[in-house]
Amino acid sequence: MNVYKIPEATVMRLSIYSRLLSQLMAEGIETLSSRDIARGAGVSSAQVRKDLAYFGTFGTRGVGYQAEELQHCLRQILGQDRQWNTMVVGVGRLGWALVCYPGFYRKGFNICAAIDYNPFLIGKKVGVTVISPPEQMEELVKTHAIQMALLTVPASEAQAVTDRLVAAGIKAILNFAPCVLRVPHGVQLRNVDLTINMELLSFNLIQNH
Amino acid sequence: MNVYKIPEATVMRLSIYSRLLSQLMAEGIETLSSRDIARGAGVSSAQVRKDLAYFGTFGTRGVGYQAEELQHCLRQILGQDRQWNTMVVGVGRLGWALVCYPGFYRKGFNICAAIDYNPFLIGKKVGVTVISPPEQMEELVKTHAIQMALLTVPASEAQAVTDRLVAAGIKAILNFAPCVLRVPHGVQLRNVDLTINMELLSFNLIQNH
Repeated sequence: MNVYKIPEATVMRLSIYSRLLSQLMAEGIETLSSRDIARGAGVSSAQVRKDLAYFGTFGTRGVGYQAEELQHCLRQILGQDRQWNTMVVGVGRLGWALVCYPGFYRKGFNICAAIDYNPFLIGKKVGVTVISPPEQMEELVKTHAIQMALLTVPASEAQAVTDRLVAAGIKAILNFAPCVLRVPHGVQLRNVDLTINMELLSFNLIQNH
Repeated sequence: MNVYKIPEATVMRLSIYSRLLSQLMAEGIETLSSRDIARGAGVSSAQVRKDLAYFGTFGTRGVGYQAEELQHCLRQILGQDRQWNTMVVGVGRLGWALVCYPGFYRKGFNICAAIDYNPFLIGKKVGVTVISPPEQMEELVKTHAIQMALLTVPASEAQAVTDRLVAAGIKAILNFAPCVLRVPHGVQLRNVDLTINMELLSFNLIQNH
């Protein structure tokens, strides 16, 4: 299995295929073609075949894919077959929504710690966890073997919090703060910038007018 | 100004440059080089120059860019110089967080309507708006001249709600439901899929191990 230089877009589509497979399997479907996957995911059949080819040979010509077998492989590739202990830092409205988002738990992202500096929040229950103060960050990472963090602090604090998370041993950060963060080599960072997504839409609206 | 076939990544970076300019201007900076922008945005100087070149000639060789002038142009390109009336459909925890997100209002995304079918929520104040029932969707779109929608309903309802939003005249949708939506040509759609972002991180963690 050659796993180097897989395009990010491919990994995102695998994630969509996996979700689609769950839906179809729940509907009782046992085998399916790349065309079925393509239709459900909104891409071409050739794209589906190309994406899967990165990871080996799947399916049988003329028969298609065994849904369960393919799903098992996709889950392994995407790391859905294990638990990823995750911490939410910044329990504002967005942070709160993320802690409670059931989609994370279903995919193995187990939010087992939440941090906020607001004394009125500390000790409060959110989802299945309790809000802790920033002083406990390092200890929580260690105790719960936390590898991933969701960052929902204000932009002005995001870099300092990131540095601390990295020092504590966090290996992957999903950042919601509207700023450019720096992480050392070996730490994974992705940004979800809500305003930039809206600006892409408004840009396209202007162009199409 | 040639505005066709601008790569999406370019538009996203323009959005980051614009945010950076706001920060730097607040710090009193009046002129800056493509290198300054590059450093702040985490890209190369050549990338900055290439991105800006799509939209004409900016800056003076050896002097750099006038921050205010460049910001004015970027805001125009991104549509930040106008108001975009926006509706949130689905006022769960995430929808509620989005209605209250101050970043949207600052960039001209004016959330002036919120829809939920939950009778306990209808009539409640959220941010600067009041939650309305689904029956009022079409009327609200018309009355407030709403062009954009943030979709935070369950995946099972997302396509039906999308069809209704499109029929009501919505031209751009930012979808948070974890599903593939279909919109007719001319309607802009973007997806913010939180789980897929986490899966990209976990995929990279596995590869780097």
